[in-house]
Order: sequence, then structure tokens, then C-alpha cells
Amino acid sequence: MRIAELSQKTGVPVPTIKYYLREGLLPSGELTSPNQARYDNRHVQRLRLVRVLLDIGRLPIATIRDLLAALDRPDPDVHSVLGSALPAILTTRDTVEPAAVTAAKARVDDLVARRGWLVGSGAPARQAAAEVLAAFEQVGADVADLLEQYADAAERIAVHDLRFVGRTADAEEMLHAAVVGSILGDSLLAALRRLAQEHESAKKFGIRRDDC
Amino acid sequence: MRIAELSQKTGVPVPTIKYYLREGLLPSGELTSPNQARYDNRHVQRLRLVRVLLDIGRLPIATIRDLLAALDRPDPDVHSVLGSALPAILTTRDTVEPAAVTAAKARVDDLVARRGWLVGSGAPARQAAAEVLAAFEQVGADVADLLEQYADAAERIAVHDLRFVGRTADAEEMLHAAVVGSILGDSLLAALRRLAQEHESAKKFGIRRDDC
Repeated sequence: MRIAELSQKTGVPVPTIKYYLREGLLPSGELTSPNQARYDNRHVQRLRLVRVLLDIGRLPIATIRDLLAALDRPDPDVHSVLGSALPAILTTRDTVEPAAVTAAKARVDDLVARRGWLVGSGAPARQAAAEVLAAFEQVGADVADLLEQYADAAERIAVHDLRFVGRTADAEEMLHAAVVGSILGDSLLAALRRLAQEHESAKKFGIRRDDC
Repeated sequence: MRIAELSQKTGVPVPTIKYYLREGLLPSGELTSPNQARYDNRHVQRLRLVRVLLDIGRLPIATIRDLLAALDRPDPDVHSVLGSALPAILTTRDTVEPAAVTAAKARVDDLVARRGWLVGSGAPARQAAAEVLAAFEQVGADVADLLEQYADAAERIAVHDLRFVGRTADAEEMLHAAVVGSILGDSLLAALRRLAQEHESAKKFGIRRDDC
């Protein structure tokens, strides 16, 4: 298909598609003449993925480029693909003291060991969790209790997430599902957490709302 | 204190503080001469909050300004303060079909009603959850099951979140804790979810890692 049809199929305007092509977020089409290219269904899929990562994941362009490069490697695996997206999701370096992060990292490593989680020692999520935990400590939260509660919730959700990823046998589709599910899942959880918080807050502080 | 001391106390460079002042993220200090101002502990606190919202929440400047304005209202409440931060966290309008969002919104409203959650009918999180849910449907997820699982997790976490917010009797501190806890909690949950996913994936696909 031509670029106009690609635009029509995905709802992404042609100038935006051209921008993604220039930024390396979308592979070039097959050239059919010096200034005309042909696109296929892989472009449609890739374009939808880019939109989710940009609009919902709010990932920076450079991170999306890294993530897509990891996806396009000859033998990509879920761990390295998801790992390449994490550092950008959490950038707290400027906010939190390095010594506090080191102490928090020990807590996270201990949590992983105690729960018997099979997680690589260099997994970026260990560092990411440590940085947020240190930021929590800075505002006076009881992190020990907090960490266990959140880890319980994460465990339950991960079981369900893997069921979602595992429903297809195709390796490429599975990776696609893992990336999309990770990004969307964070947002869905955040929105539902706000709703549940409003409920808890209404119960706790006895707020009555006419529009409930 | 002068701006240099404010910088020293918070670790935020003076030019950055000046930028926040210009952008309205930090209230002006009390003028002691035509080009010198005095700052107090409320500036220290506000500056720390701005850093968390920027660095960890990755909220746009305009959203932080709205959120701080909601905090500074004469009689601020947790719902409206948190509500003003949500729309920016989730902006999926371009990605998802409006009709799909409307259908997903009915599912979210039904979930809230079934669970007896005391949530205002106009809560922005209802719309946010609907938009993510519609995006999930677009990539072929079984949203009915997904929604229940995530809602279970959100319920448990919210109970804990409100305990964290409620530990202080001071209204301003409580709001501060609610904002920081909401933003940091999303990130902590995201990082722990990645760790738990790696574990589930290792179990499911039998991946052995030398560095476990």
C-alpha cells in the first residue's frame, strides 16, 4: 500500500508518518520509484505500537527507538526488550541522594531473594524500584510495609500479565503483546488505583457526594 | 533564607529555581530589596514536590501548575487535587476510537457500581481507565478478566495508600502525601510489576539465568 492508505488504515496523518520515518521509528517502505514507497501490514502494526508507546507510555522518542531496535534483533527476548524501556520510565537520579538509593537497592535485592523471584541481578527494574523507594523514604513513608504490599499486588498482576502474553504462540506477536501490555497495564492500574483511592478516601473521611 | 541557601538545602541549582519561579511552579519570595527575595521552609517543601512531579511523575509543566493551583486553593480537597493531575497522565485520545472509548466507559462505570466504589460520576479516572481499556481491546486483550484482576489489585493498594495519607492530621501535609504517594506509587508498582513479570516469565518459559 502507499503512504496515503497506511495513513487511512491507522488514522495517523501522512506528515506524522513521514516524521516517524525520519526519526527511525518506522522502517522505510520498499521503493517503487525514486520518490514513492510501498508499505505492508508490518508497517500498520509497527505504527500502532509507536502510537501506544508515545501517547499512552509517553516514552521519549530515543527510548522508543531503542525498544524497537531490541524488538528487531534477530533473536529478541522479552526480558531484554522490556528492560530497554524501563530506564526511561523512571529517571529519578537528580531527585534522590545516591546513598539513599544504594540503601534502597539492598532492600529491593532482599525482597527479590526472600520471595524467590527469578530475576537477573542486573535487571534495570531493581535499580528503578530502588530509586522510587528512596524517593518515598525522603518524604517519610514507612517503606518496609509499603514494599511488601506493593510486591503482593505486583505478583498477582504479573501472573495475569503472563497469561495475556502467553495466549499466542507466535514469537513476534508475543513480544508485541508484552510491550503493549506492560505500558497499557501501568496506565490501567494507575487509573483504577485513583478510583479505588477516591472510594477509600470517601469511606475514611466520610465524604458524601451527591453524584455518586 | 536567600536563593543560594534554598538551592543548597534542596540540591536544586539556582538557575533552575529561577526557571521554576518564572514558570509559576514556585511562589515568589518576600522581596527584601528590589532584586533580592527571602524564601522560607514552604519554598523548600514546594521545591521538593515540584522535583518529584517533574522527575518521577514526568508531568508536563502546565499540569504541575494546575495541580499546585488546586493545592493552593483556600479549601483544597484530595479528590480535586488528584483529579487535576490525572488527565495529563493519560492522554490516549488520538490513539483510540471514540466509539470504543464510549463502550469501555460503560464497562468502567459498571465495575465501579458493582464494587460499590464511592466515586463521583465525573471523576477523570473513569474516563482515563476507559481510554486505556479501549486501547487494550484494540490489541486483542480479554478486557473483562483483565479489568477485574487489576481492580482487585487497585483495591488492596488503595487501602494501604490511604493509611499512608492518613498518618498525619495536618491538612496540608496530608495533601502533600496524597500527591507524592500517588505519583511515586505508580512508579514503584510499575518497577515491581516488571520484576514479578520477569519471574513469571522465567517460570513459564523455563529460562535459566546464570546471574539469578
